[in-house]
Amino acid sequence: MAEKKLVESITSMDVDFAQWYTDVVKKAELIDYTSVKGCMVIKPAGYALWENIQKNLDAMFKETGVENVYLPLFIPESLLQKEKEHVEGFAPEVAWVTHGGLNELQERLCVRPTSETLFCDFYKNDIHSYRDLPKVYNQWCSVVRWEKETRPFLRSREFLWQEGHTAHASLEEAEERTIQMLNVYARFCEEVLAIPVIRGQKTDKEKFAGAEATYTIEALMHDGKALQSGTSHNFGDGFARAFGIQFADKDNKLKYVYQTSWGMSTRVIGALIMVHGDDSGLVLPPKVAPVQAAIIPIQQKKEGVLEKAYELQERLKGSFRVKVDDTDKSPGWKFSEQEMRGIPVRVEIGPKDIEAGRCVICRRDTREKTEVSLDGLEKALSEILGKMQSEMLERARRHMDAHTYSAADMDEFERLFTEKAGFVKAMWCGDQACEDIIKEKLSVTSRCIPFEQEKIADTCVCCGKPAAKMVYWGRAY
Amino acid sequence: MAEKKLVESITSMDVDFAQWYTDVVKKAELIDYTSVKGCMVIKPAGYALWENIQKNLDAMFKETGVENVYLPLFIPESLLQKEKEHVEGFAPEVAWVTHGGLNELQERLCVRPTSETLFCDFYKNDIHSYRDLPKVYNQWCSVVRWEKETRPFLRSREFLWQEGHTAHASLEEAEERTIQMLNVYARFCEEVLAIPVIRGQKTDKEKFAGAEATYTIEALMHDGKALQSGTSHNFGDGFARAFGIQFADKDNKLKYVYQTSWGMSTRVIGALIMVHGDDSGLVLPPKVAPVQAAIIPIQQKKEGVLEKAYELQERLKGSFRVKVDDTDKSPGWKFSEQEMRGIPVRVEIGPKDIEAGRCVICRRDTREKTEVSLDGLEKALSEILGKMQSEMLERARRHMDAHTYSAADMDEFERLFTEKAGFVKAMWCGDQACEDIIKEKLSVTSRCIPFEQEKIADTCVCCGKPAAKMVYWGRAY
Repeated sequence: MAEKKLVESITSMDVDFAQWYTDVVKKAELIDYTSVKGCMVIKPAGYALWENIQKNLDAMFKETGVENVYLPLFIPESLLQKEKEHVEGFAPEVAWVTHGGLNELQERLCVRPTSETLFCDFYKNDIHSYRDLPKVYNQWCSVVRWEKETRPFLRSREFLWQEGHTAHASLEEAEERTIQMLNVYARFCEEVLAIPVIRGQKTDKEKFAGAEATYTIEALMHDGKALQSGTSHNFGDGFARAFGIQFADKDNKLKYVYQTSWGMSTRVIGALIMVHGDDSGLVLPPKVAPVQAAIIPIQQKKEGVLEKAYELQERLKGSFRVKVDDTDKSPGWKFSEQEMRGIPVRVEIGPKDIEAGRCVICRRDTREKTEVSLDGLEKALSEILGKMQSEMLERARRHMDAHTYSAADMDEFERLFTEKAGFVKAMWCGDQACEDIIKEKLSVTSRCIPFEQEKIADTCVCCGKPAAKMVYWGRAY
Repeated sequence: MAEKKLVESITSMDVDFAQWYTDVVKKAELIDYTSVKGCMVIKPAGYALWENIQKNLDAMFKETGVENVYLPLFIPESLLQKEKEHVEGFAPEVAWVTHGGLNELQERLCVRPTSETLFCDFYKNDIHSYRDLPKVYNQWCSVVRWEKETRPFLRSREFLWQEGHTAHASLEEAEERTIQMLNVYARFCEEVLAIPVIRGQKTDKEKFAGAEATYTIEALMHDGKALQSGTSHNFGDGFARAFGIQFADKDNKLKYVYQTSWGMSTRVIGALIMVHGDDSGLVLPPKVAPVQAAIIPIQQKKEGVLEKAYELQERLKGSFRVKVDDTDKSPGWKFSEQEMRGIPVRVEIGPKDIEAGRCVICRRDTREKTEVSLDGLEKALSEILGKMQSEMLERARRHMDAHTYSAADMDEFERLFTEKAGFVKAMWCGDQACEDIIKEKLSVTSRCIPFEQEKIADTCVCCGKPAAKMVYWGRAY
């Protein structure tokens, strides 16, 4: 049966989660592979998702006073090298341009892996006085990191993202902005993407190259692995000193600025897929779905059916993102496609429905069907989509909670990472050596030191020395 | 006087137009130069302009069925070389990536100067049947061309643009799409940017590398020089044959697709500046201005003035893009800044105005002041902005018409290009040799063979042989 073919074309999550993921990104037509190793084509369904992410996140940024700019794609080698830790972190994974046209360049340029150094070079000339502060700039662009192993959305040699870069007159203000943007990311993930996250600080081992402090939001995927979904860095005055970014303060003294940066990328599309998806394909939260309702005519060759479907589309399109599926495929096949693409609801309308002045709304996530009077369609649709949005978040939160464990000692810690998959909360002494041992032994990394601390035990889960912090640990993408 | 300083800081257009342009882009804070030769920073005022251009143009695209995608930044050398004319046109001006991380690449990658070859490589795998056609894809991205001489917005090594790439089942449909998108560009320039354009076809000498036909919109800048502002190309099946892009048609036969591409870039910001600007700075059309109205409080330290200004901002911000200038600068200085930045109108409000329940609206382009009752502010503002938008187009059209000349013979042609600056309409035999002679002699190029043909004479303005077409000639950016 044609109806079954589409679903059967993807591997079940429980059989092979990685293969399920690869199948879904391909069958839902989010991406395609290219002749350029490690780079992908983001197809219309994938890009429309990114456009909605951009639109929502950009509006949240602007509410906090962010202004968008665009800086060059290339970074001269000498500029990249100005901040020592930063260049050590990034140089091994950048792409180098050595020739422009027919000539060899005098100085190699790297394709930006991130733009701290360019923003510093820009701010150095743009900031003179306290009146020029703060600078709260952001850019939407692509960046390149020469990864060896790549996976669609999760790790690719080129990816799309936004990178915010700010400069402030005081360390306190910089820290405030760092946390503010982390909270924007957390709110965006929960309210728009329906993905619950753990907010916290990275350990020194895991922090960004050149940062004084890196904050992160960590999400839990359906398979129990963690995905770092957004990060926000406080650089203190480290970059300012390396680049000489000074301003005349109100007291007429020259001072260094304090800087932050923060980024979220097309990786979150990977999170969307792996948090909400099921064996029939994608499940998209209504707020970010490119199409929120697929109108599917039943017996569309019968007189008046297609016309009614178009009429509903016209009626709804001012308030919802709707699309009639008027292809000559069977309704069952159309249902499968709507499910594979994760369209939040389908509106089924056939001759009998038209006669009775009603239609059927079927939710993608629960498959729950509701018979709705055509008169009250807008209201019903709005309620169902709203309910679906909040229930998706609740469901994901229940999953995260159910897969978050605590370990007081190493035996329990090992047992959990052997038998279960999820976050494990455990105490840590603060010594990187323990992180190294845990990573070596279990392929587990510290995900974050959460803002909401708990006391699981008195001693470090690894070395038994007095505990300094509670840490979320996990296997990560 | 402080009030005069800002205006005096820019060169007068009549003294040195090129310097005026450079001064304006810098003083209006649209761009900044960088350590990366030939690349620029697009600052918030410049980028907000680009965002509005994107938003308007993207909506027009989507109305015609365009879907957005994202393809890789890099093109393998072997892929670029598949279409002979195309590679000859672009290879001399591309940037080459030779190293990824610490290793030399097996094959060089160029940073995309345009993405025809990548779209072809993608379409080759994505198109199988007539059911997959047409493909009407577009991407917003940056491209790189290793130019020797650069100028902000007009010619830079990296610039932002959109590039549409389509595939069709027939040549007729491809031609229709090529013209359709040219018309979208023309409508966008006239309705949104208030820039009148001449639509026409490029001669073979000036067409895009690999195209069968290139169509263009040409605008006339204030100094009488032409600016190519958008192009649309019909490739026939040339690329499809080079890349093997075939589909099974309804008759079950394998056929090659027909393709088009079309692009508009940050160059149009250069056009905006050079068509509308004056000796006080930018003049932005209301539809695309990041801030449409600057609310400038007069005697803002007096009680209630700033509060009233904020109140008006709150009232207006749902319908207009408004901003109170509450800095501690003098009103005169604020006026100068509003003028330099090209903000369409300023709303002046002081203690006497508040008492009388009115304010003064001053237009940027004509400096015309209107006293307006606060009760009717929305209506008045809407009318004034609407009028300004249409009058800016009319004014620019009058300028273009007044600087469009006709020449029946070479003497007249030479005299016009010596004494005047603008478009010259003249007949052409169709032979590239005549274009070469004219370019050599007068640094003048054929801008386009306009859709609206006129008969200026019977013979070619250059060689005297029978004329084939009337051509717009000009000196171009």
